[in-house]
Amino acid sequence: MARPDGRAPDELRPVTLQRNWSMHPEGSVLVEFGNTRVLCTASVTEGVPRWRKGSGLGWVTAEYAMLPRATTTRGDRESVRGKIGGRTHEISRLIGRSLRACVDLKALGENSIVLDCDVLQADGGTRTAAITGAYVALHDAVHWLGKHGSLKGSPEKVLHRSVAAVSVGIIGGEPRLDLCYEEDVVADVDMNVVCTGTGDFVEVQGTGEQSVFSRAELDVLVDLGAAGCAELTRIQREALS
Amino acid sequence: MARPDGRAPDELRPVTLQRNWSMHPEGSVLVEFGNTRVLCTASVTEGVPRWRKGSGLGWVTAEYAMLPRATTTRGDRESVRGKIGGRTHEISRLIGRSLRACVDLKALGENSIVLDCDVLQADGGTRTAAITGAYVALHDAVHWLGKHGSLKGSPEKVLHRSVAAVSVGIIGGEPRLDLCYEEDVVADVDMNVVCTGTGDFVEVQGTGEQSVFSRAELDVLVDLGAAGCAELTRIQREALS
Amino acid sequence: MARPDGRAPDELRPVTLQRNWSMHPEGSVLVEFGNTRVLCTASVTEGVPRWRKGSGLGWVTAEYAMLPRATTTRGDRESVRGKIGGRTHEISRLIGRSLRACVDLKALGENSIVLDCDVLQADGGTRTAAITGAYVALHDAVHWLGKHGSLKGSPEKVLHRSVAAVSVGIIGGEPRLDLCYEEDVVADVDMNVVCTGTGDFVEVQGTGEQSVFSRAELDVLVDLGAAGCAELTRIQREALS
Amino acid sequence: MARPDGRAPDELRPVTLQRNWSMHPEGSVLVEFGNTRVLCTASVTEGVPRWRKGSGLGWVTAEYAMLPRATTTRGDRESVRGKIGGRTHEISRLIGRSLRACVDLKALGENSIVLDCDVLQADGGTRTAAITGAYVALHDAVHWLGKHGSLKGSPEKVLHRSVAAVSVGIIGGEPRLDLCYEEDVVADVDMNVVCTGTGDFVEVQGTGEQSVFSRAELDVLVDLGAAGCAELTRIQREALS
Amino acid sequence: MARPDGRAPDELRPVTLQRNWSMHPEGSVLVEFGNTRVLCTASVTEGVPRWRKGSGLGWVTAEYAMLPRATTTRGDRESVRGKIGGRTHEISRLIGRSLRACVDLKALGENSIVLDCDVLQADGGTRTAAITGAYVALHDAVHWLGKHGSLKGSPEKVLHRSVAAVSVGIIGGEPRLDLCYEEDVVADVDMNVVCTGTGDFVEVQGTGEQSVFSRAELDVLVDLGAAGCAELTRIQREALS
Amino acid sequence: MARPDGRAPDELRPVTLQRNWSMHPEGSVLVEFGNTRVLCTASVTEGVPRWRKGSGLGWVTAEYAMLPRATTTRGDRESVRGKIGGRTHEISRLIGRSLRACVDLKALGENSIVLDCDVLQADGGTRTAAITGAYVALHDAVHWLGKHGSLKGSPEKVLHRSVAAVSVGIIGGEPRLDLCYEEDVVADVDMNVVCTGTGDFVEVQGTGEQSVFSRAELDVLVDLGAAGCAELTRIQREALS
Repeated sequence: MARPDGRAPDELRPVTLQRNWSMHPEGSVLVEFGNTRVLCTASVTEGVPRWRKGSGLGWVTAEYAMLPRATTTRGDRESVRGKIGGRTHEISRLIGRSLRACVDLKALGENSIVLDCDVLQADGGTRTAAITGAYVALHDAVHWLGKHGSLKGSPEKVLHRSVAAVSVGIIGGEPRLDLCYEEDVVADVDMNVVCTGTGDFVEVQGTGEQSVFSRAELDVLVDLGAAGCAELTRIQREALS
Repeated sequence: MARPDGRAPDELRPVTLQRNWSMHPEGSVLVEFGNTRVLCTASVTEGVPRWRKGSGLGWVTAEYAMLPRATTTRGDRESVRGKIGGRTHEISRLIGRSLRACVDLKALGENSIVLDCDVLQADGGTRTAAITGAYVALHDAVHWLGKHGSLKGSPEKVLHRSVAAVSVGIIGGEPRLDLCYEEDVVADVDMNVVCTGTGDFVEVQGTGEQSVFSRAELDVLVDLGAAGCAELTRIQREALS
Repeated sequence: MARPDGRAPDELRPVTLQRNWSMHPEGSVLVEFGNTRVLCTASVTEGVPRWRKGSGLGWVTAEYAMLPRATTTRGDRESVRGKIGGRTHEISRLIGRSLRACVDLKALGENSIVLDCDVLQADGGTRTAAITGAYVALHDAVHWLGKHGSLKGSPEKVLHRSVAAVSVGIIGGEPRLDLCYEEDVVADVDMNVVCTGTGDFVEVQGTGEQSVFSRAELDVLVDLGAAGCAELTRIQREALS
Repeated sequence: MARPDGRAPDELRPVTLQRNWSMHPEGSVLVEFGNTRVLCTASVTEGVPRWRKGSGLGWVTAEYAMLPRATTTRGDRESVRGKIGGRTHEISRLIGRSLRACVDLKALGENSIVLDCDVLQADGGTRTAAITGAYVALHDAVHWLGKHGSLKGSPEKVLHRSVAAVSVGIIGGEPRLDLCYEEDVVADVDMNVVCTGTGDFVEVQGTGEQSVFSRAELDVLVDLGAAGCAELTRIQREALS
Repeated sequence: MARPDGRAPDELRPVTLQRNWSMHPEGSVLVEFGNTRVLCTASVTEGVPRWRKGSGLGWVTAEYAMLPRATTTRGDRESVRGKIGGRTHEISRLIGRSLRACVDLKALGENSIVLDCDVLQADGGTRTAAITGAYVALHDAVHWLGKHGSLKGSPEKVLHRSVAAVSVGIIGGEPRLDLCYEEDVVADVDMNVVCTGTGDFVEVQGTGEQSVFSRAELDVLVDLGAAGCAELTRIQREALS
Repeated sequence: MARPDGRAPDELRPVTLQRNWSMHPEGSVLVEFGNTRVLCTASVTEGVPRWRKGSGLGWVTAEYAMLPRATTTRGDRESVRGKIGGRTHEISRLIGRSLRACVDLKALGENSIVLDCDVLQADGGTRTAAITGAYVALHDAVHWLGKHGSLKGSPEKVLHRSVAAVSVGIIGGEPRLDLCYEEDVVADVDMNVVCTGTGDFVEVQGTGEQSVFSRAELDVLVDLGAAGCAELTRIQREALS
């Protein structure tokens, strides 16, 4: 049972990270994991939300969204429905937590960075592509702040870790890395792994709605995801050099 | 560094499951994990949502909420704010997925069961208490349907697995089971583990916002959580016998 | 035509008032009028809403809500629907007015007290049970403020009256006190009577949607309600002693 | 202490009822109670809401609203705020109940009538003016249905009662009929009385937020209100003849 | 093909402007273009929105709305639907821009004027009637501010231009001025022309949804609209003298 | 006073139209007017909205939106604010009308096409770029329907006209074509001109918020806009050949 695009089970799709795709944001990256295409922008504003003022700490948050026709059938806009769905909330929170894990908020000082991750085209793995791309946009925004003398610490101190993410799953008994949509819908178990550039874990979310998974399967998936994140870390570094 | 209530690191808080706490629902359980107190009700309706009609499959879903003063300071009602927050969405979805993992939707037939988990008092672990209690309420609702001759399969076929959940975390280097609120806010790593009655995993969600975690720490937490779920499974069985 | 539970026409259902049912609020009461069960909590915050700042006056308000399965069939959550219904608004406003009638807002000083009345189980008379229970929770919150030295006047000056409420109605020509749900739906006339501990009226709301009522019937209902409130006042005093 | 406009304590303000003020509605009345000016329209639609289909019963409902500058200071539009306030809800429900008390829904057949009561200018007593005017608009809409052969019963059978409403209050110890705004804000006790054309009561809502009221005061207010409604009934008959 | 009301193609409907129709607003006008009837009120508040504070500039804005039964069939209230429709937004913005074109915001000083245009009865041309009436209400509000010594400049400096508006369209090849509803729905081309009292253009909005229009047709419509506005300017002057 | 990018006053910015930019939609175009970049997708669904069923007519509608950081400073998401702003509504309606002017809805049959125009990067003229790009996406969607045998008429009959749009304005007395953002904010007069491929007008919207404009200026702007649209029509034809 070959993969739809002929990849090896432990092989990523072609990954590209185009920096400075947009002219206005302080950091912007168009990230592609195969056909999945997410525009990640990092917007800097001086100051922090009211509840945080005077704390000396900065703030980093994320918002994820999909264009209505990023998917095979058109979805209603959340702005038209007048409320944000549960899936959107869940993913925005995951991205925000993952990126805050990289940032020393004290060294950032009272600055805010919002990471917008808008899916222009979806083919599975949009949340992991978003995290991987948003890290690079965040990097550029932090250095922009550094150049403008607005940080408490150096950019390297502010962004003391890198982060990347990938999905893994079990399909027909075979563990696979970086599922495309066609694989995602038939997976028995599905896990998102978020790792730092040094191989520690930031988030691990495994779910077996179609099925359940054993301790052994959990181990295989975690290791496969960690290996995928290591490769993504390499690609991020290349993009940033 | 002893635990606030003097428990051993791998010890659950006192857990109680009061069945039939409410007179109207087809299943209702007041679950307590120490001071955390959640009212779980299972409401049966004939038929399924429109998009599912004619499929022959049933539907199980969950809604989680907190009373405004379940917490140390009063929170605004989501009904007053006019929208449901991201945290509420995320937890409702987790509970729903966890319980659907127990149910054979074909054997359920075109019936719907809504699990409402309303936190009356919060002291950490509300989502894991909710899953653990909701399973028992779901059990009673499925048997109610069985008695009324409304199932396609037997109650045992419909509810072919049990599910329980517990939180684990690392505090000052020590892995601990079933964190209370005071522990939750200082944990470096926090994981929710959802297991079946036979020890398989339904969901594993580990997050290290304060910190990151190594492969070894992940293993310890997963094992501690699985052991806690085994004990909760025993308590569920007792309540149902 | 006996009453469903065999009571005399002018007899209350068994009424219980459990103080300190919850650990977090400054006042909390689980009130039961028969099967009707309402959790009333009083939450204190220092300061008053912006439009009231500098007035020297405190603020007391109330919010009423029902758990989705408090009733015989499950109701949608108002948080999910994204708006509060007319009935909820109407009852919240009634409770707020009734309790403000007991409070000397000047003696309260610039403190706010929110009374949350969440119906855990409904069997008629939820709004009158809520008022009766909320008074006791309010009492405890005012004394809590007194102990913390945060009042302008003494607790007795702040809470210079007590308040209790009960429903009355005419069923098949017979005036009855404290209707349960089964009686409520068939009543020709329905009235809610809110009285002070000394027998004055705070609110009288009579409605005859099924029918209309004469001056004589109005008199009978008002008197029956006042007698019921007198008995509830006695029960409140007992609970507070 | 004379009244602001020199009226006797038991005297109504000048009341006018202009029928057919608007060209589109099946019934429309511009009602004035002194400076209070409410446009009441009755809109007929064939059929009833989905939940009522096949019942053979009609439906009558009401919506109350204020233009933003009907009052001394401009209020935000509820459409702009995105939600309907508690006061609006409460009054809309009161008007709807009061008018349904006049209608034999079976004789109406499966037709719907919506009564819109829009306050163009407010000077106290807007809800009672609305009820009094809406009755006349309803009358015209029912007769319009009769002329079009769309009723199950005769217009007289459908509209088997008339209804009128007035506010009463106690100011400085003096009971007064039909309070204007200046009186309303200083009243110790405030009551709205809704009566049929034959002197029975449909609704009585007395509230003493500033104060409380005795049994004797209640009697005086109820009688004063009933007398005011009798006079309003006479004015309605005149307008309809 | 005569017009429904027998007018000449370049003839306005009877236009009336009743000043001071309401008692509370600083300016209020009931404007009628034939059967179209709009209540325009101007509400003054001291100060400006937060984002404008300290600029020394005033603020003028407009809100347009329709009563539910202003039209032949009843429309749902936007407050009930919980959101403002696109048409309402579009018209409110047009009215606001048109009136700001008349005002020297510096001479107004830090005062705000809100123009509410509520359609009581609709028969085509509601937005142009609203602009024409709102100008007169604005005039009265500016003079009210002048009398109270609250302006930076004289009322004449503040309101340095007048503005009026009218609709024009092509029906069956014939250009017509001031379309009523019956004409509006069959027009091939429809244009709203907003002119100053000296014949300059403030807004020109031509749309040909049923059809498209040539350069020559555009010229005819613009000239017809300008002539209509000149006549409306004359009527405004008369009303203000 | 040269233009910021050195263009002649009657010169368009470089315009590109990339067809098939996305894999899922039936038509998709990335349109660029200089730095303005809009993703236009056309989504086909069988059937029409409920209120149109059985009419034999198709439906074409449009939704315009901006990514939060398409602009120089980040804007809040309309989904987060829970409502769509007036500007968004106004532009969506303009795009929808403009494209419906090209379509024979009878020949389209009971099919729906939604045009989503999402601004990825904004530098003035986003609405006119959206119309120009959406026409090409619509073309491809209509031909897709034609290939699938789902049209009542031929694709040429369905799409019997083309449409393009451009902004024009007067800056410092000089009429200019296709304003970039820097020009847009200082323009005295601003007009959007929407023309068919044969030079007729679909919409003309001129506004002079900063100033007013004479008949002569209107003529110059209309002619300049029409010439710009003719050039855009040529570019559209090239892209489609």
